[in-house]
Amino acid sequence: MLLLHLSDVDEASWADKLRAELAPYPVVRRGDAFDPSDVRYIFVWKPKPDAFDGLNGLKAVLSLGAGVDALLRHPKLPDAPIVRFVDDDLSQRMSDYVVAHVTMHHRLYTRFRADQKAKRWSQLYPPAASETTVGIMGMGVLGQDAAKRLLPLGFTLRSWSRTPKTIGGVEGFAGTESFDRFLAGTDILVNLLPLTPETSGILNYETFSKLRRDKLDGGPAIVNAARGGHQREADIVRALGDGTLGAASLDVFETEPLPESSPLWAIENCYITPHIAAISNEKSGVAYFSRIIRAHEAGEPLINVVDRDRGY
Amino acid sequence: MLLLHLSDVDEASWADKLRAELAPYPVVRRGDAFDPSDVRYIFVWKPKPDAFDGLNGLKAVLSLGAGVDALLRHPKLPDAPIVRFVDDDLSQRMSDYVVAHVTMHHRLYTRFRADQKAKRWSQLYPPAASETTVGIMGMGVLGQDAAKRLLPLGFTLRSWSRTPKTIGGVEGFAGTESFDRFLAGTDILVNLLPLTPETSGILNYETFSKLRRDKLDGGPAIVNAARGGHQREADIVRALGDGTLGAASLDVFETEPLPESSPLWAIENCYITPHIAAISNEKSGVAYFSRIIRAHEAGEPLINVVDRDRGY
Ligand SMILES: NC(=O)c1ccc[n+]([C@@H]2O[C@H](COP(=O)([O-])OP(=O)(O)OC[C@H]3O[C@@H](n4cnc5c(N)ncnc54)[C@H](OP(=O)(O)O)[C@@H]3O)[C@@H](O)[C@H]2O)c1
Ligand SMILES: NC(=O)c1ccc[n+]([C@@H]2O[C@H](COP(=O)([O-])OP(=O)(O)OC[C@H]3O[C@@H](n4cnc5c(N)ncnc54)[C@H](OP(=O)(O)O)[C@@H]3O)[C@@H](O)[C@H]2O)c1
Repeated sequence: MLLLHLSDVDEASWADKLRAELAPYPVVRRGDAFDPSDVRYIFVWKPKPDAFDGLNGLKAVLSLGAGVDALLRHPKLPDAPIVRFVDDDLSQRMSDYVVAHVTMHHRLYTRFRADQKAKRWSQLYPPAASETTVGIMGMGVLGQDAAKRLLPLGFTLRSWSRTPKTIGGVEGFAGTESFDRFLAGTDILVNLLPLTPETSGILNYETFSKLRRDKLDGGPAIVNAARGGHQREADIVRALGDGTLGAASLDVFETEPLPESSPLWAIENCYITPHIAAISNEKSGVAYFSRIIRAHEAGEPLINVVDRDRGY
Repeated sequence: MLLLHLSDVDEASWADKLRAELAPYPVVRRGDAFDPSDVRYIFVWKPKPDAFDGLNGLKAVLSLGAGVDALLRHPKLPDAPIVRFVDDDLSQRMSDYVVAHVTMHHRLYTRFRADQKAKRWSQLYPPAASETTVGIMGMGVLGQDAAKRLLPLGFTLRSWSRTPKTIGGVEGFAGTESFDRFLAGTDILVNLLPLTPETSGILNYETFSKLRRDKLDGGPAIVNAARGGHQREADIVRALGDGTLGAASLDVFETEPLPESSPLWAIENCYITPHIAAISNEKSGVAYFSRIIRAHEAGEPLINVVDRDRGY
């Protein structure tokens, strides 16, 4: 039996489609009459504190989120394997966001917008993409897709990950000891890390001050599309104000929705989007999780299982 | 003998580098002592009215501009073949501009910026690139390079040219009779046409009103990186004001520099850059025109010769 426990999305619609896809396999929602010990899979998004109560026959927890940082902090998370959502459509949308914001900063959007406001015609030629280095933090599913899209645009690319990566056209850096060298050659820093104790607060003033300063007019830029917990917003405010950063694109925030009192809203060279970089698509989500359940019921191993020790 | 006649750029620097590259072939500037009838090649950018006087032994006019519309209007343009600048570096920079502005509109920049100003957290998910159609007008050197960069991003692409084109992944439309069909499926219209009597003023209200309206929140967008003569600025003001267009990125203008009195400066959903989309790079220009001269002196035919009847 599959139990749905989805907050903030249209759970009824997911239930209809999963039932149609998995029938005759039973699919239930929280309000339905069922015996908790019959539940083999629970499909969750923002689970409530009692979400897992009585589920003593679980084979897997299915996470609609690609990132599982919040789920891993659930106080009663059972010991079953966690399968996270990995999907081409999600990756495409994330790369759409990343490319739009990287190219915006590469083409000096902040500077030309200020000139426009002042009705000032002032020619300045941005560097070619090849003369600009984009540094991607996190070279997993999303980081690799972003690299695949940025490469044909001509950018010089480097990546930073926990373990070494060899990806054509991308200079790989791995581990904390190479972080400073990675930053020193980066003009536009893209964050696609998972949120773990090691990566929490990594977008801080010290990090910003290590980026390359002499390539992009106005200073280096950051693009954070991963988690609000990665960034120190007070440091971003300071760095955007004193020129340590030329611009920042933020899709995620320490507190979401971003409170009206946040100084970020009013900063001219801060580009805010309301956590819309990439959403899990219902159609591909139904196909993906149905496939996972059918395969596992047929005796195949689970895929995209979270490593709890690593935290992602 | 090669004569340089370059306005608004560092002619002395071009002369030094062309001399170094072409030596012992003679390279002269306007102030130098030389017999005009010895000049075989003239290398021009914004030539003065008397630029071609006395040059009765010309074999070719070399144009630093990729677009030759202004040159073709020169009242004393001699009958010699015109070789225009075609260059990978120039194409890369133009595509950098095109991709940055296409992706900005695709990701609904105007809408999210307005929300930010109002400190409003309002989630709206842009369509995936694959659900968005970019229509490229002009499928020559620059249009094809832009298509090559936009394709791996996942956009649906269509092009419009004078003669039919078969380019993988791009739906080709050709000729005036197919223009309306081309527009009807286009969400973001990119102009990379040459300026000719046929294409002058093509970015007008009627054209805008034929674009697809139901895909991009706020309405379709245009990106003009070709020539100011392609656009009717009064029509752009009207279309941005009444919602016929959601946004416009303009790098070129009817009058340049754009006069302070232009209403375009103050329009929130109009994105102005001061004709900096792509500049001819000195290093590749020197290599290109030196190669042209050496090859032609060795008896080989000229390349990238302008067709005066077509006007490009
Ligand atoms: N804003 C949004 O709408 C949105 C949507 C979806 C996802 N996200 C976020 O994006 C994150 C990334 O997703 P993904 O699917 O690409 O994750 P993933 O496939 O698990 O990849 C994670 C990458 O980060 C690296 N990494 C992890 N810890 C590290 C550390 N301490 N130091 C250096 N590198 C480290 C990993 O290195 P190894 O390769 O060595 O393991 C891997 O390359 C998610 O966790 C989620 O938070 C945001
Ligand atoms: N803003 C800047 O910084 C900048 C820099 C460089 C260039 N430019 C502009 O960009 C323009 C395009 O450059 P390019 O090198 O790509 O030119 P190109 O190689 O000559 O290509 C021109 C394209 O336009 C098409 N075309 C011409 N007249 C047409 C008509 N009446 N109807 C439909 N299609 C027509 C041609 O069709 P066919 O293929 O059938 O011939 C061809 O596909 C230049 O002329 C210049 O004005 C601007």
